[in-house]
Amino acid sequence: MDGRFGMNLNDNVLLADIGNTYFHVYDGTHVEHLLYEDALVKYQDKVLYYISVNHHLGAQIEKVVLWKNISSLISIEGEYETMGVDRKALCISHHSGVFIDAGSAITVDVVEKGVYMGGFILPGLKAYVESYKSISSVLDIVLNKELKLEHLPITTKDGISYGIIASIKALIDQQREGKTLYFTGGDGKFLSSFFEEVIYDEMLVFNGMQQAIMNKG
Amino acid sequence: MDGRFGMNLNDNVLLADIGNTYFHVYDGTHVEHLLYEDALVKYQDKVLYYISVNHHLGAQIEKVVLWKNISSLISIEGEYETMGVDRKALCISHHSGVFIDAGSAITVDVVEKGVYMGGFILPGLKAYVESYKSISSVLDIVLNKELKLEHLPITTKDGISYGIIASIKALIDQQREGKTLYFTGGDGKFLSSFFEEVIYDEMLVFNGMQQAIMNKG
Repeated sequence: MDGRFGMNLNDNVLLADIGNTYFHVYDGTHVEHLLYEDALVKYQDKVLYYISVNHHLGAQIEKVVLWKNISSLISIEGEYETMGVDRKALCISHHSGVFIDAGSAITVDVVEKGVYMGGFILPGLKAYVESYKSISSVLDIVLNKELKLEHLPITTKDGISYGIIASIKALIDQQREGKTLYFTGGDGKFLSSFFEEVIYDEMLVFNGMQQAIMNKG
Repeated sequence: MDGRFGMNLNDNVLLADIGNTYFHVYDGTHVEHLLYEDALVKYQDKVLYYISVNHHLGAQIEKVVLWKNISSLISIEGEYETMGVDRKALCISHHSGVFIDAGSAITVDVVEKGVYMGGFILPGLKAYVESYKSISSVLDIVLNKELKLEHLPITTKDGISYGIIASIKALIDQQREGKTLYFTGGDGKFLSSFFEEVIYDEMLVFNGMQQAIMNKG
């Protein structure tokens, strides 16, 4: 590791998870969601450990002297070569579970006793809604966030909202097999409301980063 | 009805189902899929009964003297006001079943003993793939048509292909409850290959139109 600053966590070290849309920063107390430019202005003079899946920002971020890319620390047994580092961090946050990150895309990953078993990717809720809109103006609706899944819908708006939410739910429920469902991400809280006995925690990716730093730093 | 030509089916009457992308024509023997302009050149001098969900073409189609819009004949008990006429025609093709039309969008409708019970709409396979692409270039993949659903995938391409197909399948399987699954539409044959004991029939919408003409014409 870089000898300039130790890989121990203390109050002065910020953790960042850089996604395709937002820059998520954890200061040890709570999580802040910023655009890249705003994060740069606010935190470029702070010590910050980050992981990033945003390939456009790669070179720019590397130039910030006090920021350190810790992606190489994040790994899980059974991982695949192109697996996003944020998914890996999420998957090491607990020993077993189904991990759902509902952001621009929705990733669903299954971990059993510390071993990655595989996973799949769904469009994010916003991407789903845009997708219908691209097919026909008749299908251009706002997601019904009050939707009930008990009955089959009989309107276009509810038929689309049901298609999105019930299909995501049906496939995730198939993976449970007694495991805990862990939700995170911008739509994680909303999506988790359609499931029984789940955990929503916006810290999961940061918990995974902390685990990696403590174990390997 | 218009007295100009009787509402009986014979060898000279063509049926057309006009969608958002294609113009589907049934000549009593097989189904042809054309673009609107090509259908106009080929069939404007033929007697043709049609239903249409393509609002952009409305006024143009109405002008073709020998073509007749039979949408008003198509109805099913329990239908809702904005229900697409092609979905209604599909739903009256058999007395009971789950009817899946996999085209630009995928519509799934449940009918029990001639009564419409409700349904939902998913993006079409092409729209799904485009949706991932719009999120990130990393998610820009070609659907793996050889995908097996037995194991959780561990690559991005398969993770996306699995997300699309397995989520559609999971939600459709939930609706079965002993009913027959009837597939139609451009991707109907491919999609039906992931289900057990199903019927794929590209005539379903036309069968529904024929039923309506025979019962009410």
